[in-house]
Amino acid sequence: MQLVTVDDIRAAAGRIRHQVVRTPLTPALWAPGLWLKPESLQAIGAFKVRGAFNAIGSLDPDTRARGVVAYSSGNHAQAVAYAAAQYGIPAHIVMPEETPAIKVAATRDHGAEVVLCGAGQREKVAAEVVERTGGVLIPPFDHPAIIAGQGTAGLEIAEDMPDVETVLIPVSGGGLASGIGTAIKALCPRAKVFGVEPELAADTAESLQQGHRADWPIEDRNRTIADGLRSQPSDLTFAHLQQVLDGIITVTEDEIRSAVRELALRAHLVAEPSGAVSLAAFRKSSTPLGRTVIVVSGGNIEPAMLRDILG
Amino acid sequence: MQLVTVDDIRAAAGRIRHQVVRTPLTPALWAPGLWLKPESLQAIGAFKVRGAFNAIGSLDPDTRARGVVAYSSGNHAQAVAYAAAQYGIPAHIVMPEETPAIKVAATRDHGAEVVLCGAGQREKVAAEVVERTGGVLIPPFDHPAIIAGQGTAGLEIAEDMPDVETVLIPVSGGGLASGIGTAIKALCPRAKVFGVEPELAADTAESLQQGHRADWPIEDRNRTIADGLRSQPSDLTFAHLQQVLDGIITVTEDEIRSAVRELALRAHLVAEPSGAVSLAAFRKSSTPLGRTVIVVSGGNIEPAMLRDILG
Repeated sequence: MQLVTVDDIRAAAGRIRHQVVRTPLTPALWAPGLWLKPESLQAIGAFKVRGAFNAIGSLDPDTRARGVVAYSSGNHAQAVAYAAAQYGIPAHIVMPEETPAIKVAATRDHGAEVVLCGAGQREKVAAEVVERTGGVLIPPFDHPAIIAGQGTAGLEIAEDMPDVETVLIPVSGGGLASGIGTAIKALCPRAKVFGVEPELAADTAESLQQGHRADWPIEDRNRTIADGLRSQPSDLTFAHLQQVLDGIITVTEDEIRSAVRELALRAHLVAEPSGAVSLAAFRKSSTPLGRTVIVVSGGNIEPAMLRDILG
Repeated sequence: MQLVTVDDIRAAAGRIRHQVVRTPLTPALWAPGLWLKPESLQAIGAFKVRGAFNAIGSLDPDTRARGVVAYSSGNHAQAVAYAAAQYGIPAHIVMPEETPAIKVAATRDHGAEVVLCGAGQREKVAAEVVERTGGVLIPPFDHPAIIAGQGTAGLEIAEDMPDVETVLIPVSGGGLASGIGTAIKALCPRAKVFGVEPELAADTAESLQQGHRADWPIEDRNRTIADGLRSQPSDLTFAHLQQVLDGIITVTEDEIRSAVRELALRAHLVAEPSGAVSLAAFRKSSTPLGRTVIVVSGGNIEPAMLRDILG
């Protein structure tokens, strides 16, 4: 299987340079040795714009003009809708009927057409929309252009801190960890790269231990409040994770909530639970990690949940 | 009177390049035409590190080795303590006895020696400490090196958005607005630069109207929840503000609270009230501002106040 290379990631960085925020590393004075990569500051509040812009920007102009299609109830929907709007092309986003109205409205606000579907029907309905519109499917993680796009965050980490010793990255479908891990291992070969999962959705931790992909029932994965971390890697992302991760750290729901609170009160960042798991992992580690970067992957938390966690 | 120039600001930028966060401009998709400069992401949670590092970095090494002295109960205290620690020099910070214990502790955590004093005694006690220790006083705003340091945020705005049309900056002692205004007027001469004040501490709005400094009683200025905006410009900063500001926009306490809430829930940024006034001004403006940058100057809000505002 052909894996994404650091050169692919460099090409992606050139392609999306004017379209995404070049996030800084911010020192966490209250936690010596820790720096944050606040991807929550991207336009749609999450790193997903990196992959979306790279995937859409990689299409040849004639193909791109036919528009794009995505299935997602989360940040990938916003990212594809936003990127498509910037390119001035149509976007159809397939979302489950039970998606909160606020997320449907946010997707429509970017100018995308939302196609609602029954539970478990997303991929089938998306295929129909592709057939009907001639648009190109932009998958949430299972594509080299998505992995390379997300990896641009890793290039930036390596540029800003060439002597980084540990990088902690949330893992769901694995696109972000695959991309960042590839960049870090190429440019900072002495650095350790760990994925982070909720204990309640630790399929990748199990998969890496047993050497092949474990399949956790979606009902199990849905238990975590980290709603962005309920997907599982594909063959493509799992092959990357096997190559670039030094391991997975799993965190409890209470640890995730504490990390959301700590980010708000100490780092001045509103993070969604999925975006805060890296801090939870940093707090949990019993061995010294050295100069550590945590990726705060997104900030789209429901106001009620934020209020509840801040107590 | 000799005013700070854009060349002074460029020199400051070179001096502090490796010591402060190069904050990005982040697009506010929910408010078309608006970008944020999140200075709340600086190490101590506010822009004040820019001036502190520039002032300390400008000292000749022998003088610097004697240490520094500052008086502040707020972000300037943290900034000077932090910058001194990075330079490995002693810092004495004079704080009023009524300063919340948490802020005293945070200042000590940076290794600074805190000298508590009675109300209204700060400047006198600081002078005594300077006499006793031989250290150099680092004032919060009334110094060219502080103005030039704060102005580096303006250089970055001009680099990232050369065609910016409006910049909105909180005004207290006026160091930040003097510095950013100087950079913007030099590099983006068609841009408008507005200061922002709480209605309850609008001394500079009155001063600019009458053409000389108005003096508001501190009891009046203390009414605003924007505790970082209770100072008044000095002769030096007022001369800059007269030169570079196109006006002042004043905002109510309710507007400030709404802006804190909007920054948390839409921009994923925890801002202190003083840091949120620029958004309040943007929301209030009845005339089109064009491509606008607001400076979110700091994030150090008390947890209880944040909870109350998100309520």
